[in-house]
Amino acid sequence: MAKNQKLVKDITAMDVDFAKWYTDIVKKAELVDYSSVKGCMIIRPYGYAIWENIQKYLDAKFKETGHENVYMPMFIPESLLEKEKSHVEGFAPEVAWVTHGGSEELTERLCVRPTSETLFCEHYARIVQSYKDLPKLYNQWCSVVRWEKTTRPFLRTTEFLWQEGHTIHATAEEAEAETVKMLNVYADFCENVLAMPVVKGRKTEKEKFAGGVRTYTIESLMHDGKALQSGTSHNLGDNFAKAFGIQYSDKDQKKQYVHETSWGVTTRLIGAIIMVHGDDEGLALPPRIAPIQTVIIPIAQHKEGVLEKAEELRERIAKVARVKVDSTDKMPGWKFSEYEMKGVPVRLEVGPKDIENNQVVLVRRDTREKEVVSMDDLEVRIPQLLEEIQTAMFERAKAHRDENTFVATNLDEFKEIAENKPGFIKAMWCGDLECEEKIKEVAGTSSRCMPFEQEEVSDVCVCCGKPAKSLVYWGKAY
Amino acid sequence: MAKNQKLVKDITAMDVDFAKWYTDIVKKAELVDYSSVKGCMIIRPYGYAIWENIQKYLDAKFKETGHENVYMPMFIPESLLEKEKSHVEGFAPEVAWVTHGGSEELTERLCVRPTSETLFCEHYARIVQSYKDLPKLYNQWCSVVRWEKTTRPFLRTTEFLWQEGHTIHATAEEAEAETVKMLNVYADFCENVLAMPVVKGRKTEKEKFAGGVRTYTIESLMHDGKALQSGTSHNLGDNFAKAFGIQYSDKDQKKQYVHETSWGVTTRLIGAIIMVHGDDEGLALPPRIAPIQTVIIPIAQHKEGVLEKAEELRERIAKVARVKVDSTDKMPGWKFSEYEMKGVPVRLEVGPKDIENNQVVLVRRDTREKEVVSMDDLEVRIPQLLEEIQTAMFERAKAHRDENTFVATNLDEFKEIAENKPGFIKAMWCGDLECEEKIKEVAGTSSRCMPFEQEEVSDVCVCCGKPAKSLVYWGKAY
Repeated sequence: MAKNQKLVKDITAMDVDFAKWYTDIVKKAELVDYSSVKGCMIIRPYGYAIWENIQKYLDAKFKETGHENVYMPMFIPESLLEKEKSHVEGFAPEVAWVTHGGSEELTERLCVRPTSETLFCEHYARIVQSYKDLPKLYNQWCSVVRWEKTTRPFLRTTEFLWQEGHTIHATAEEAEAETVKMLNVYADFCENVLAMPVVKGRKTEKEKFAGGVRTYTIESLMHDGKALQSGTSHNLGDNFAKAFGIQYSDKDQKKQYVHETSWGVTTRLIGAIIMVHGDDEGLALPPRIAPIQTVIIPIAQHKEGVLEKAEELRERIAKVARVKVDSTDKMPGWKFSEYEMKGVPVRLEVGPKDIENNQVVLVRRDTREKEVVSMDDLEVRIPQLLEEIQTAMFERAKAHRDENTFVATNLDEFKEIAENKPGFIKAMWCGDLECEEKIKEVAGTSSRCMPFEQEEVSDVCVCCGKPAKSLVYWGKAY
Repeated sequence: MAKNQKLVKDITAMDVDFAKWYTDIVKKAELVDYSSVKGCMIIRPYGYAIWENIQKYLDAKFKETGHENVYMPMFIPESLLEKEKSHVEGFAPEVAWVTHGGSEELTERLCVRPTSETLFCEHYARIVQSYKDLPKLYNQWCSVVRWEKTTRPFLRTTEFLWQEGHTIHATAEEAEAETVKMLNVYADFCENVLAMPVVKGRKTEKEKFAGGVRTYTIESLMHDGKALQSGTSHNLGDNFAKAFGIQYSDKDQKKQYVHETSWGVTTRLIGAIIMVHGDDEGLALPPRIAPIQTVIIPIAQHKEGVLEKAEELRERIAKVARVKVDSTDKMPGWKFSEYEMKGVPVRLEVGPKDIENNQVVLVRRDTREKEVVSMDDLEVRIPQLLEEIQTAMFERAKAHRDENTFVATNLDEFKEIAENKPGFIKAMWCGDLECEEKIKEVAGTSSRCMPFEQEEVSDVCVCCGKPAKSLVYWGKAY
């Protein structure tokens, strides 16, 4: 069995080489395959099933909060991309350009959308006349392209899948409320479904969205102490409205510019799940997002009645959980390893002796704890166990995050932590770009966010010693 | 009210200009908006909601039949596209080429996928080793691009949404069974959900998929007597397997090529719904696909208790149907027209007098028949009525199709029908490309399919008079 496990797994230990551990998992848990298209990934069935679950939860939440789905073209004419000046400066260096259709050269180049603000704006300008037409709360599920030099599956790829919400409102207040509301939808989703604690906060001017007014973010901490920006929500103010002429007549028939937001999460969330919950045995999926929540492994399946019992249990459990039987002719030990690698939260073993005793063995993926359970109790015990695992995974991730969040009150302290203790660094900041850049230069960390939950860990800027304006989370980031 | 209706609707009558009628509907029912990207459409919330319902039904059916979803890159390197010779010949003239990433020129051009056989093949070649790995039953929901000269929303656009199934099998028989099975899934979906009768059959060699062995199709007849290819399923044989080297070891350890299929339906189905069921009042949606199945219009809604009652009914009906209340401050007559235009199957009117009498008025979109129903019976009557409408819409479409299907036994007859009676023409064919081309030339009709249900309407070819091999449906097509 030890040999089998070696064969199935054969993954680099996390402590030896975290990056290699990560790519081993994405390949060996069959989440992705590489393609001959540089920087693009193939999302395999098991990886895509995770994305489908993410979509299902979030899409329902978007609809509950009044949003409607639409589909915009994947191409943006160069002249349209250029309409909002800081937006084009932010994105033009990294877009893919279509120059030919069939055998003809196009009169105007088209970029493959890196994000769709410009398309939504053009559409909104055409369909909005009156305050009665507002708000428009649209969302789109699609893929976007950003020409990346170095790529890593899920974390940074030339093409990735995402959703992009784009809304317009009559007032600045409503747009701000929407921006924060959607950030909270993301935060709740990450914490409650992905069992991943996040820090909610605002991005600095340096790190905000190209063309926006304010960017909010949720930041999470990976196993290796690096931060991952896991979702962002932008208040675009009336910048785009002015560039694209999106106006409405208010109740007094006066023309007003709309206020706009955009927000998105991507397949990067799958990378976050891997790096928050995975271990040296492979992936570990929080039950609420796992495509398979319980896998049934028949033991001595050639013996009479074993496969029939496994199938009977599957039918019963299917009413309370996503369940699968693996009745292929591999050895049970091999299967144990395979589903550990794939991060299935609960394994159910059932063999001739179990059947005799009207019991099964349940094994948790997260702690590897075993329990023997009466077959009569499965419909109760399995959902309960899945909830226990969900909670425990969140608590463990939170403890890890908290243990690896440090406070620095001066630059030496900051540098020392940044060098020796991978994690978040909480430190006060004066608000000056210069200090933000200097911290990046001397410690290699970027500002992750100014958290909504402010504390005063000191009263002066960690860099310049002048009066502090805000607490900032800093870190090395993916 | 007549004036209001004029304002809301203002659509060209079908008999005056069918093409204009069609584009009026897609615009005024708010299904699409045009974008500044030539040939690409914006699918608005109401149009996209129809697509989401199509996806929901089909995706469930694909999963029931053992298929898994994946995601492939949107780009195909030129060298990969060229691997299967007749495939590249079929598609290269109509692809969009990416030549630059950011500011750099690419060393190899990438095309935006027009279809993804080549990507699936490359992946399959890498992941399949043994007969135990077969079959692979994959599907992908995505958008594809084909550089079209003349476009029309849903029917022919440069970019469109679709699903593409790609499967590989150990034997030719299994691949053939899969190809036919998926065609039947499409046919059942069109008939049972879209209320659209289809002719199932096989494409001629001339009309088959570039690189495939056999193409099956479902063909439906539009209001104007033109045919619409509504879904296709291709048996690719081992053509692609040989070009891409997709081999497996069979039970005797011998290398064998896999047998492959691909199949797809697109947003074109929305065009079909419009042209099969729509009328001069606008869109008419079959209940099973309608985003809103029942719209509640409060009458004299400023009067006490009306809006409350409307909301109370909405909550009750929501348990049995997709329902919405329109309580905006437009006049009821305006709303009637608006939801007729949008094709909502049932309108429920409720005003002070109805409340007094504990009743509501139900109005069918398809026949405009009214009935007065006790409020107590709504949970029973509405689902029943929706089913009645669904059946009636199918029967009407079928009657139209049958009335406009003609038989020709010689070329003069054929030409006369093609000129004067828009519809399907059933006629025998010898199997020669020459006759197929001649029929196209003299009558302007293409072969739609050789139907599974063969009849012998004559024993000689309608064109050359030689012995006939097959009955063929011919028609002018979108």
